[in-house]
Amino acid sequence: MTVPDHVLTLAEVEALSYEVLVAANVTSNIARIVARSVRRAEADGIRSHGLARLGTYGQHARIGKVDGQAAAELTKTGPASVRVDAKCGFAHPAIEIGLMELTKLARESGIAVLAITNSYNCGVLGHHVEDIADAGFVGLGFVNAPPSIAPWGGHTPIFGTNPIAFAAPVANRPPLVIDQSSSVIARGEIMLHAQQDKPIPKGWAITADGEPTTDPKEALKGSLLPSGGYKGAGLALIVEVMAAVLTGANLSIAASSFADDAGGPPRTGQLFVAIDIARLAGRNAFDSQFGCLLSAITDQPGARLPGDKRLAARSSTARDGVKVPDKLLAALIEKSKH
Amino acid sequence: MTVPDHVLTLAEVEALSYEVLVAANVTSNIARIVARSVRRAEADGIRSHGLARLGTYGQHARIGKVDGQAAAELTKTGPASVRVDAKCGFAHPAIEIGLMELTKLARESGIAVLAITNSYNCGVLGHHVEDIADAGFVGLGFVNAPPSIAPWGGHTPIFGTNPIAFAAPVANRPPLVIDQSSSVIARGEIMLHAQQDKPIPKGWAITADGEPTTDPKEALKGSLLPSGGYKGAGLALIVEVMAAVLTGANLSIAASSFADDAGGPPRTGQLFVAIDIARLAGRNAFDSQFGCLLSAITDQPGARLPGDKRLAARSSTARDGVKVPDKLLAALIEKSKH
Repeated sequence: MTVPDHVLTLAEVEALSYEVLVAANVTSNIARIVARSVRRAEADGIRSHGLARLGTYGQHARIGKVDGQAAAELTKTGPASVRVDAKCGFAHPAIEIGLMELTKLARESGIAVLAITNSYNCGVLGHHVEDIADAGFVGLGFVNAPPSIAPWGGHTPIFGTNPIAFAAPVANRPPLVIDQSSSVIARGEIMLHAQQDKPIPKGWAITADGEPTTDPKEALKGSLLPSGGYKGAGLALIVEVMAAVLTGANLSIAASSFADDAGGPPRTGQLFVAIDIARLAGRNAFDSQFGCLLSAITDQPGARLPGDKRLAARSSTARDGVKVPDKLLAALIEKSKH
Repeated sequence: MTVPDHVLTLAEVEALSYEVLVAANVTSNIARIVARSVRRAEADGIRSHGLARLGTYGQHARIGKVDGQAAAELTKTGPASVRVDAKCGFAHPAIEIGLMELTKLARESGIAVLAITNSYNCGVLGHHVEDIADAGFVGLGFVNAPPSIAPWGGHTPIFGTNPIAFAAPVANRPPLVIDQSSSVIARGEIMLHAQQDKPIPKGWAITADGEPTTDPKEALKGSLLPSGGYKGAGLALIVEVMAAVLTGANLSIAASSFADDAGGPPRTGQLFVAIDIARLAGRNAFDSQFGCLLSAITDQPGARLPGDKRLAARSSTARDGVKVPDKLLAALIEKSKH
């Protein structure tokens, strides 16, 4: 390599991820899919779901918290509905086969729904809905996770950070992707701060006793704060019903941690909806109105589109690669060897 | 009546609403549907969409800003998709015929979508998704409105308060309904404060110059603040695409005010999704898991379910009726006469 050894190209990120997963007894085909998701996360600058999480993926595959050999099982349950049982394996391959069927059904029917159950951390939710938009549809995604947000008025976490994601195709540019957790900040960001021994800003979280904190480790033991107060808690509840109750997955309160080794498979769920633009506004009217809307945002000084930071990172990492902390890189290389 | 004349029973609210609408040249059948929605709003204590708005409905019907004679036109565009052109009439009758088809298609296909275009203020969004849940489905609703929220980083409103609503059936109690605007507070609340000459709390809105304000009239000329900062602006954008771009309705920036007489029909849009529980988790598993989730909330001291305030109001107004300000009541009685 002509670059310093702590900078990896995206191809190297993907190759390293693949090696770490295969060394952890993950089937080659599944390792390829998950490695690609790690690459996409790093490409977009979403480090909490990139190499920083890869070690945990490998560790969980080794101890059976995620089954690296699982064959996801797809069942078409209606003309416009499909379920995939991830069989306690990675979410990514379950979502990949599910989305192919989802977009086919949405084209036939006007809208379709995909419910994934018995699944694991799905990485960056926004990337899955971006795939729906790349296929020409408007996409919605919902995912639950181990508990980290208390209900409004309470103190004990019962919701995951429960993000909602949305994507829609835009003429002559990548899809618009909105990917937001129900908390003020994603749990992955707090994990990253803990990993790097960096304090978190006030207002992100409270301790287990309900006190404000800037210590990421105390925050991880306490409760994340919902975004916008009771409205964030309301969104977390919507996502919980969509991603867990409707899919037959574990509720967040029953899901084991994505971070540590305890408790067996988390069995969380994901739900996706694809809507056929052609059956509603029609593609030309959609493109034209959506263009007007996006211009009304970008024409305002200071205003920006959601996802712009990710797209900017996508350009720069493709050109410059990604900087990987030496300690993290050494640990991953070690894990890729056995 | 044995009650003081400034307290109306819900039946009296509905009858008065019907008279005001018919006097404003609204067709009897449409007046009945809209009057019922005013009653439901007052029953749930949502006064901003109750009698306080009825005078505007009548005035707009008189001047043709809403067509009180319009015959909404339904088109089935796919096995699971339906569009209704409200023809610049009230949203309520368009939604009523649309929801009947929506739930039929969702039962056949597993999920279905209803897009309403060329429409008007739909009243309480949560009531329409509650109807979807009462029919046994999980419901989502999106609606846009004249501009009142600026994009994140900008100063000029381009989004309506753009609420999102969700409802799901609960065994042995009314559906859980979550109905949240993308702003810190609904515009209707600020209109109500302006009507009653009451100041608004700080943090609800900014003036046209971007300054914080407690004057509801200045707030109505400026911009509402999105809930949770950029995440509320993100939600407003999602809702704008779902309710306006996908339905072929006016963008919020092109929609005339719901409050004053200028600009002709607002031609806003609504979009609803119904999901068939039987095709996903199955009704028994859904009921059982949903029950666990709701208990995990209500078991926590201090925690409360979204919509509890509305349900409590529903009980008390059914028993005690609703207090109507004398000035408002006198004005409405006057309007019902000619």
